[in-house]
Amino acid sequence: MSVLFKNARILATENGAFKVLDGAFLGVDGKKINYIGVSRPSFSYDTEKDMHDRLLMPGLVNSHAHSSMNLLKGMGSDLPLQQWLNTIWPVEAKMRDVDFIAGMEMAVLEMLAGGTTSFSDMYFSPMVTQKVIGESGIKADLCRVVMGGDEHTDYLSYQNRVEALAFHRDFDNAYDGRLHVDWSVHAEYTISDNIAEKWAEEIQGLGGRLHIHLSETRAEQESCLNKRGMTPAAWFNKLGYFNVPTYAAHCVWVTDEDLAVMREKGVTAVHNPSSNMKLGSGFAPVQKMLDMGLNVALGTDGSASNNNVNMFEEMHLASVIHNGYHLDPTIMRPSDVIKMATINGAMAQGRPDTGSLEVGKCADIIAVNLDAPHMLPDHDTPALVCYSAQASDVCMTMVDGKILYENGEYLTMDKERIFHDYRASCEYLASK
Amino acid sequence: MSVLFKNARILATENGAFKVLDGAFLGVDGKKINYIGVSRPSFSYDTEKDMHDRLLMPGLVNSHAHSSMNLLKGMGSDLPLQQWLNTIWPVEAKMRDVDFIAGMEMAVLEMLAGGTTSFSDMYFSPMVTQKVIGESGIKADLCRVVMGGDEHTDYLSYQNRVEALAFHRDFDNAYDGRLHVDWSVHAEYTISDNIAEKWAEEIQGLGGRLHIHLSETRAEQESCLNKRGMTPAAWFNKLGYFNVPTYAAHCVWVTDEDLAVMREKGVTAVHNPSSNMKLGSGFAPVQKMLDMGLNVALGTDGSASNNNVNMFEEMHLASVIHNGYHLDPTIMRPSDVIKMATINGAMAQGRPDTGSLEVGKCADIIAVNLDAPHMLPDHDTPALVCYSAQASDVCMTMVDGKILYENGEYLTMDKERIFHDYRASCEYLASK
Repeated sequence: MSVLFKNARILATENGAFKVLDGAFLGVDGKKINYIGVSRPSFSYDTEKDMHDRLLMPGLVNSHAHSSMNLLKGMGSDLPLQQWLNTIWPVEAKMRDVDFIAGMEMAVLEMLAGGTTSFSDMYFSPMVTQKVIGESGIKADLCRVVMGGDEHTDYLSYQNRVEALAFHRDFDNAYDGRLHVDWSVHAEYTISDNIAEKWAEEIQGLGGRLHIHLSETRAEQESCLNKRGMTPAAWFNKLGYFNVPTYAAHCVWVTDEDLAVMREKGVTAVHNPSSNMKLGSGFAPVQKMLDMGLNVALGTDGSASNNNVNMFEEMHLASVIHNGYHLDPTIMRPSDVIKMATINGAMAQGRPDTGSLEVGKCADIIAVNLDAPHMLPDHDTPALVCYSAQASDVCMTMVDGKILYENGEYLTMDKERIFHDYRASCEYLASK
Repeated sequence: MSVLFKNARILATENGAFKVLDGAFLGVDGKKINYIGVSRPSFSYDTEKDMHDRLLMPGLVNSHAHSSMNLLKGMGSDLPLQQWLNTIWPVEAKMRDVDFIAGMEMAVLEMLAGGTTSFSDMYFSPMVTQKVIGESGIKADLCRVVMGGDEHTDYLSYQNRVEALAFHRDFDNAYDGRLHVDWSVHAEYTISDNIAEKWAEEIQGLGGRLHIHLSETRAEQESCLNKRGMTPAAWFNKLGYFNVPTYAAHCVWVTDEDLAVMREKGVTAVHNPSSNMKLGSGFAPVQKMLDMGLNVALGTDGSASNNNVNMFEEMHLASVIHNGYHLDPTIMRPSDVIKMATINGAMAQGRPDTGSLEVGKCADIIAVNLDAPHMLPDHDTPALVCYSAQASDVCMTMVDGKILYENGEYLTMDKERIFHDYRASCEYLASK
């Protein structure tokens, strides 16, 4: 199956930099992009699609989510952190397999409609939610979160690890490679030294990537310094975790030394601006990370602390809040932010074959409607994407050359059935 | 003409506080709301509209905009302030009456689609753009901006004032009161003492309200202190401006003394979070303003520095950025933010008959679609509006009991003709 998009504006990549083409052509053959240019290609295609007034850009990569937590959205809003956690934990503890699945399905509906073609998720039951990746056609890096380790939770952490190892063995690279199974340590403050050391040894040499939370709050940072005499990043590094390709969510309170270690070890920092603002965590030193040459990706965090999985909203926040914080309108350039939301996330996921529109790359492509009052005029396409566009402007989402969402319709997912199941899960969790 | 909305979720107001009704009825008779309740009213209505899976909430009031500046959107993005101004000023100087009108029309299309039912605009040619208010059915407070005053611009500032006075005389309360004509001083730093004193005398006693920029940047604040030995707020107050009901945009660098004066004089602070972040202006002390009892409204600023007129985006930013800045998730409650975006703005516009859903108030109502992945579940309706909702979720916008926008269609505006004119203006301004 091959398709030629014509008359499009295209946010293409050439030698690592964005290049905007107008009235241009993009050809897809099978899973791959086989042509980008302003003149019609000489190859023939099965179908042609007119993309007048549409911007084709790379699909978005949401590099840190807890998808099924959308079921907890809005519970305990605006409470202090601990009270909020105390509100949602008892509900989370009630979640059954069907609830994890319903939450994941609803999140994927939202992500596809908003231009996300791949996401990295950390939660408890990827062993059951993985089927949503298979059925929907989206790409994802899932992991079975590992935590615990004191005398009360030793067995739990053992179970976490057994499940994580089995999940990796059985599902890594499933669904034609759309599913990656990553390793995980929830965070420095939710695992004991004993278990953390054991787990670091267990996963080394098995391949894959590591997904962690790092230095999200000042309290976490200070408590780790008090308890261990080192920062969370130094502790992870000491245990050898950073020998596994790692992406670390939040990184709000990392020190300059932490950043140097992360740079040296190739750790990706995942910026989560909505969550960091809403929960009062603070401003990650993102411009400094970029200046130091770290790979910085972008993620929504869970819908319980966002409260959605809207990557356009994250791009907007990432583009503006640091200017405000540093009193400088010249930092955080839109082109850097779009890279954070696309190719940098793809690199963190170990997917060098996606994240940009280039010949030979996977056809993970979204179309953004430019024919709307807020999208005119276009004097600067990356600025338009970051400052003006909304997730709802996405009118087509394609993964591996297959259209999964177009003009409000889902081509692989049964929206009505999913809404029905999701509402049933909401009712169940609200009961008692 | 009367209409009964049924089966709706309603964000009503009772004794000054929000109250969420479910499966409820809202009746509109002529321009006014004549019923809100969970049981069917005994009155009869010409038509009924089923609002299942819809939230009815008050229309949004955008309290600070420069609508026609959408034509300059994306020009000189991410340049330092002065270079950005130097980029846009020559283009702005080319704008003809048709361009001001095209810009205003496009902004009103965007605002109606995003749930704005009234806005306060400051720009150069309200004398010609006022007709857009008349034709579209939206409400607006327009003003002819007054600035200038040194030897080179004395004549200009004289012309500004003559135009402002004539505009007020001819158009205040036009279009059944939907148009208010306000007074304006652009800002402390763009007018001379001489002209500012004269203008303060001229407008006192004429009624109306005053729309100004106040303490937007640190440079403005410091330069005023150096030049005049007082803050911009103290200077405006000394000249008597605050005897006119005033709303002041930005207020980022106001001092505690300024806030005390504003509180005493009833000056509304208009918060512009997108613009303040994007331009690197800083964080207005909004929570302190609210705690002190100031009236705080919300606005987008112009699309050249935002880059859209999306009040849902402003509500989101206002809800989260201050938590991040103060490292406290408990401040800036969604219900306060929605008031900023509705009734507080209505108060600043001198429209006590709107801004909330209550019997007897104007039927300035929007419907928000709740049947979308990012809008489920609803555990906390104000939180859902501020954290999860998007402008594109608005599916109906009603002003004075008249539906102006519904499900993508405009009932009073010719979208096709406006897009055509707007594109012609963009081409003209981009030429040479």
